[in-house]
Amino acid sequence: MSPSFPKIAIVGSGAIGLYYGIRLALGGAEVKFLMRADLPAVRARGSLILKVDGETKELRPVQAFATSAEIGAVDLVLIGVKVTGNDALPAILEPLLHAKTALLTAQNGLGAVDFLADRFGGERVMGGLAFIANNRTGPGEVLCYHPGSLTIGEYSGPPTVRTHALADQFQAAGVKTRVADNLASAQWHKLVWNIPFNGLTIAAGGIGTDQICADPLLAAEARALMREVQAGAAALGFPISDDFIQRQFDVTPPMGAYRPSSLVDFLAGREVEIEAIWGEPQRRAIAAGASVPRLTQLYALLRRLAQR
Amino acid sequence: MSPSFPKIAIVGSGAIGLYYGIRLALGGAEVKFLMRADLPAVRARGSLILKVDGETKELRPVQAFATSAEIGAVDLVLIGVKVTGNDALPAILEPLLHAKTALLTAQNGLGAVDFLADRFGGERVMGGLAFIANNRTGPGEVLCYHPGSLTIGEYSGPPTVRTHALADQFQAAGVKTRVADNLASAQWHKLVWNIPFNGLTIAAGGIGTDQICADPLLAAEARALMREVQAGAAALGFPISDDFIQRQFDVTPPMGAYRPSSLVDFLAGREVEIEAIWGEPQRRAIAAGASVPRLTQLYALLRRLAQR
Repeated sequence: MSPSFPKIAIVGSGAIGLYYGIRLALGGAEVKFLMRADLPAVRARGSLILKVDGETKELRPVQAFATSAEIGAVDLVLIGVKVTGNDALPAILEPLLHAKTALLTAQNGLGAVDFLADRFGGERVMGGLAFIANNRTGPGEVLCYHPGSLTIGEYSGPPTVRTHALADQFQAAGVKTRVADNLASAQWHKLVWNIPFNGLTIAAGGIGTDQICADPLLAAEARALMREVQAGAAALGFPISDDFIQRQFDVTPPMGAYRPSSLVDFLAGREVEIEAIWGEPQRRAIAAGASVPRLTQLYALLRRLAQR
Repeated sequence: MSPSFPKIAIVGSGAIGLYYGIRLALGGAEVKFLMRADLPAVRARGSLILKVDGETKELRPVQAFATSAEIGAVDLVLIGVKVTGNDALPAILEPLLHAKTALLTAQNGLGAVDFLADRFGGERVMGGLAFIANNRTGPGEVLCYHPGSLTIGEYSGPPTVRTHALADQFQAAGVKTRVADNLASAQWHKLVWNIPFNGLTIAAGGIGTDQICADPLLAAEARALMREVQAGAAALGFPISDDFIQRQFDVTPPMGAYRPSSLVDFLAGREVEIEAIWGEPQRRAIAAGASVPRLTQLYALLRRLAQR
């Protein structure tokens, strides 16, 4: 069976772009990776590397390019760059588009799909929520601690034939994939983990998620922040179950000394997606009438910490 | 007029001990300073130095000692050591006591007076609240940015003749001094400033109070924390006025790039008085039924940050 999206471009070859790009390529699609700093090292090696479940998968040969013009039009663009780089994104995406090209952004937090819909039309735009623990460990090399699952949804409304076709293609490529009835609701569900763990690991001085879970006060703060996210989502019409909250605590300890992507960026001196993960959710929750004092304080601290 | 407390020992010759000790000595009392690391440098110079209001005051000769046994019994002990060193305090204080020796602790936060009362009897114990901005700038040398005022009160009840006599002695020595009708209430008033500013300057990455005031989000957090302290104090029976809250914002910008003592300790890798300033107030506020979510989160973050 040939894939529904045979030609795919990966924009942003960090942990997320590499993981899903390698999976989709090994699953039979023609996947072209847009790279900048990592391009020479990847071309010299001639492969991309995915370490997962105790084994090393190598994608060889690799199609890596310096510009989107070299890649040309594709059926699907998977966007894995940081949302902080969005100013440059429209010019990058333009050469990749044909009339039906779908844009799937796996960018964190809130705001990325709205940004793409504003510029390219909402009907192109899909959101992908990666419930995954992985880190880029070198040029073109990703280590996956916990493959988790991917949730995809449409920006403009409920799932369509396209949504299910893409989910099937991911699934066939070894990615456990769910289709979201409501993308915004799914985004708030993802924030339940990201807001406390990405935030507290930075604000508590650069520690892993294991140390948040092992410190009774910080674990209680993570839970209290989740309750605030739950309250914000509920005020916006997206109920989140108590069971879902509990599951976030069940899945985290097995990740070990995991450093969320925001902490990795922070420690490396790179920009952190403060507005997408904390600022925009905090503003939307407050606008909807929810009480989110811990989120507000955490956002203020992180915004300042990230300015250094 | 001879001072009511003619013989005084200063335990802890950091910014607080030095400032008040030098003032009291220049005011005519016989003041003996207990010192450890700074003793050789202070003896070599032969003086203590107070920089305040654009002038430099030198106390010469200086009575500096390595042990409290050399100092012997005094009428008043002013305790300026960090509350984190309290384990060693009883053995240090013992040789300084006669039947009527008063213990005035200028230690931060909540718990220090209870600690002394447990060991030496509540009738000896007074609390001193230093509303002051000053830093130790070298051995036996203190720089005062804003002399502010000192509030003193009795541990065991309302002010007595002794309380007013000590206030008069401070006043005569150039220290603007108030007598508190209720020491616990006064301590909560002091926490209104200390909890947000000592805490946020650390949690936001080691910045001065000027940068808290200049960042709209962090300034709003400082104010929200003050409201929580106000709520905690009210639940415990100590009302704090809105005017008092506003005054904390009026006095802070003139301090400039001030680093609160907790931040100075934190940046120097010294122990921070986490429990006295955040932990104990947070626990007492919650036990009294107050809602203090920001304080709880800040306490959890600071406790972790201070463990490094």
